[in-house]
Amino acid sequence: MKENIKVEKVKKTNFNDFLYLVDKLAIYEKLTPPDKNAKDRLRKDCFSKNPKYEAYLASLNKKYVGYLIFFMSYSSFLALPTLYIEDIFVLKEYRKKGIGQILFDFCVSIASKRKCGRIEWHVLEWNKPAIDFYEKNNSVHLSDWKYYRLEKNKFK
Amino acid sequence: MKENIKVEKVKKTNFNDFLYLVDKLAIYEKLTPPDKNAKDRLRKDCFSKNPKYEAYLASLNKKYVGYLIFFMSYSSFLALPTLYIEDIFVLKEYRKKGIGQILFDFCVSIASKRKCGRIEWHVLEWNKPAIDFYEKNNSVHLSDWKYYRLEKNKFK
Repeated sequence: MKENIKVEKVKKTNFNDFLYLVDKLAIYEKLTPPDKNAKDRLRKDCFSKNPKYEAYLASLNKKYVGYLIFFMSYSSFLALPTLYIEDIFVLKEYRKKGIGQILFDFCVSIASKRKCGRIEWHVLEWNKPAIDFYEKNNSVHLSDWKYYRLEKNKFK
Repeated sequence: MKENIKVEKVKKTNFNDFLYLVDKLAIYEKLTPPDKNAKDRLRKDCFSKNPKYEAYLASLNKKYVGYLIFFMSYSSFLALPTLYIEDIFVLKEYRKKGIGQILFDFCVSIASKRKCGRIEWHVLEWNKPAIDFYEKNNSVHLSDWKYYRLEKNKFK
């Protein structure tokens, strides 16, 4: 029996399922999950008039097991929008079932519909399963670019 | 006599000066500058109802010598917008006058006003003057993240 995988937009009714999965990704990545205030902002920023990000849930037999967050960035030299994948995640016990592939293909279909020039993302260098997945999907590691950040506590 | 450096928003009246500088950055970075169609899209995307990017020009004694492009991205774990610097550039013959610093400080002031959690950007690994500049400005190289891209010609 083929398992039933679906992708649906994050809505007010499944927002807590979404937040649960965001926490799970942060734990997996050994990063700090959003605190209570950050979760309130995630909700506001998802449903505002001009949402700051777009979010989707993947379900397997009606259980939410993965999620996706993306937004549009921009390339000045191409003069085309870029679909930037902020997060793509599947719970450990539900991997190897093609759910991540469905979420990635979903990004590709959105990028194609919106006439993006590129899809871009970052992956933690120790996350070999993710890197293997992305390399299998024809993407390239842009090793000639260095990624920099200035944190808020350094703003004047 | 102190030289007169100003930062102003890119407008329809100085758009060609802006395009000239975008070409100059692409040449400096050994990347492909925007072609005629891309330049038309840059114009449309700058002045549309929901602009896809924000652009500023730096002038020295009323001559345009540098520019800045940024847009807002987003951090899911912070649940705050990130100011992403797409381009920051000063013509070679006008460097070492503090113009790049004024453009970078301008980004910091915008990020602070808009309550961003971070400022982020990428720099080419051979661009030592830029790297030295960014390191002097308290930013950190996120060496544990790998930057990936899927180009349009790989979209299904």
